[in-house]
Amino acid sequence: MRAAVYQAAGEVVVEDVPDASLGAPTDVVVRVLRSCICGSDLWAYRGIIVRPAGSRLGHEFIGIVEEVGDQVSTISRGDLVVAPFQWSDNTCPACLDGLQTSCQNGGTFGAPGTDGGQGEAVRVPQADGTLVAVPGGLAGVGEQMLTSLLGLTDVMVTGLHGAVMADTKEGDTVAVIGDGAVGLCAVLGAKQVLGAERVILMSRHEDRQHLGRAFGATDIVAARGEEGIAVVRDLTGGLGVRHVVEAVGTPESWQMAVGMARDGGSIGAVGVPHTMPELPIFHPFIHALRITLGIAPVRRYLPDLISRVMAGQLDPGPVFDSSLPLESVAQGYAAMSARQSIKVMLQ
Amino acid sequence: MRAAVYQAAGEVVVEDVPDASLGAPTDVVVRVLRSCICGSDLWAYRGIIVRPAGSRLGHEFIGIVEEVGDQVSTISRGDLVVAPFQWSDNTCPACLDGLQTSCQNGGTFGAPGTDGGQGEAVRVPQADGTLVAVPGGLAGVGEQMLTSLLGLTDVMVTGLHGAVMADTKEGDTVAVIGDGAVGLCAVLGAKQVLGAERVILMSRHEDRQHLGRAFGATDIVAARGEEGIAVVRDLTGGLGVRHVVEAVGTPESWQMAVGMARDGGSIGAVGVPHTMPELPIFHPFIHALRITLGIAPVRRYLPDLISRVMAGQLDPGPVFDSSLPLESVAQGYAAMSARQSIKVMLQ
Repeated sequence: MRAAVYQAAGEVVVEDVPDASLGAPTDVVVRVLRSCICGSDLWAYRGIIVRPAGSRLGHEFIGIVEEVGDQVSTISRGDLVVAPFQWSDNTCPACLDGLQTSCQNGGTFGAPGTDGGQGEAVRVPQADGTLVAVPGGLAGVGEQMLTSLLGLTDVMVTGLHGAVMADTKEGDTVAVIGDGAVGLCAVLGAKQVLGAERVILMSRHEDRQHLGRAFGATDIVAARGEEGIAVVRDLTGGLGVRHVVEAVGTPESWQMAVGMARDGGSIGAVGVPHTMPELPIFHPFIHALRITLGIAPVRRYLPDLISRVMAGQLDPGPVFDSSLPLESVAQGYAAMSARQSIKVMLQ
Repeated sequence: MRAAVYQAAGEVVVEDVPDASLGAPTDVVVRVLRSCICGSDLWAYRGIIVRPAGSRLGHEFIGIVEEVGDQVSTISRGDLVVAPFQWSDNTCPACLDGLQTSCQNGGTFGAPGTDGGQGEAVRVPQADGTLVAVPGGLAGVGEQMLTSLLGLTDVMVTGLHGAVMADTKEGDTVAVIGDGAVGLCAVLGAKQVLGAERVILMSRHEDRQHLGRAFGATDIVAARGEEGIAVVRDLTGGLGVRHVVEAVGTPESWQMAVGMARDGGSIGAVGVPHTMPELPIFHPFIHALRITLGIAPVRRYLPDLISRVMAGQLDPGPVFDSSLPLESVAQGYAAMSARQSIKVMLQ
């Protein structure tokens, strides 16, 4: 089969690789319908983190179940399934806590030795605990809804999780730092899923501002750094914001997150802090902040969010502003790295 | 009047100072019955932070109201009052959030230009929003109960607040890092106020271990660092602790706090991080930790905790293992700095 393979920073190719196959009786093989490129894929592409040459790429995909291991009981051949970006058994103590990202038997698609989502098919370990089948299957699911479902594999849930960790509730005011796909989905999640009243999006890019407004942002702030903090404080009666989503993971974004938070406020941090090894904590201490960090346990959210998508109540699809065939994946990485595209879908 | 005055690192004296007096119509003057020395007073005493020479000392006191400003309505002459270590108007947005430590009109006793608790009397600004009168006054309040009430001015509430920020609920397992007065009060608060089932206290000192057990600790761990983390993980089925109170504020204590927390767990941090400027955040990110920081808004807790003390349900008094007259305050600082005393009361 064909799959995207990482060669070196700036170098992603599509190659012939061994066909995905069952490796354990708890596996299934999924034929990929759609996958996409993640902002986190860009860390290695840009040379900020090291990734082994030859490793597969991609951790977001939806598809049709093609082969089913003997011990799989809830997933059947032909099912349309949504995959979280990590697999999990959904039975261990962490999974029972709803923290499937810490599963004792978990792992991430695209990690060395595994199949990636950016390929024709994927071996899915722990299929019962990982995949969620879409009720009714592929019949009746149009092109647009497939795109929306693809959004649930990572960005939609990661953005929403940021807002959840920031303790966002109905009627709240929340600020979102980061206008990438995750930040935009944090806007959508805060507004549509959690019922926030006011959503302030920090964004300098006109196309992203536009999508942010479409997703429910009530205020757009283009200023950055201390100036951006001052604008947000002005917008909130000088007090700052009770709920802040940090969806970037750099020292600059963290400085803004901490600086604009109201005393006693909550920050939900989903931006992987590759360039942010240490957080100055005296300011958070003095201002009594609550900081909750981590990647999204997508599996926990999937059943609810699939229902919302199928009911037409939630549509993260517009974050995919570009679509390419798998064979053109290199073009997609280049476009996202150059910020010419918010998020590239692969078909 | 006589009051303790900071001269230099290691040098605290009792001097004649101007009598406490009303400075605003919202003030009262309180004649101090009991005060005490705080672990946080030791930062300057040990030369770790700078404190202006000539500034007053102490932020924990109870006493009898002696003079009352014209605009004070809820506090009367003769009242037995408990003072939080910070004053607050209790009407501003932060106070209405229950975060009186961020009051727009607040301040800390003992800060330069204010009276300290370690003196014969104290001018209390914003008296209505700050002081809580003990129902029934001094009549019927014995010596032991006065000591217990003194504990509510800081350490009892700071320890409890750490456990609250760590999201401790009835039946939970919580670990407390720090066996000073605050850590010991975190044990007491977690157990007696919040109903924790299992409380693991990190302590190497026999007298403090003893008091920790009396306060409700179910497990004492003397090991430190990676070894201490390993012991706590062993005690919790290898998973770590869901609720951790950080009551020290050093890199070593933070390393333990983060290392022993269960994935998805909560850390409540009340140790002032003078020697801990930056927190490495990759580990907390990977392990999905929630970190809540800050000093305790004592005023929020006081009415409830005074009731508990008066009803005999809560007694932090035993943290005071030493009592001295005000004139011997220097001896108290030396004893606490040398860890010969957990907490020194001044009468």
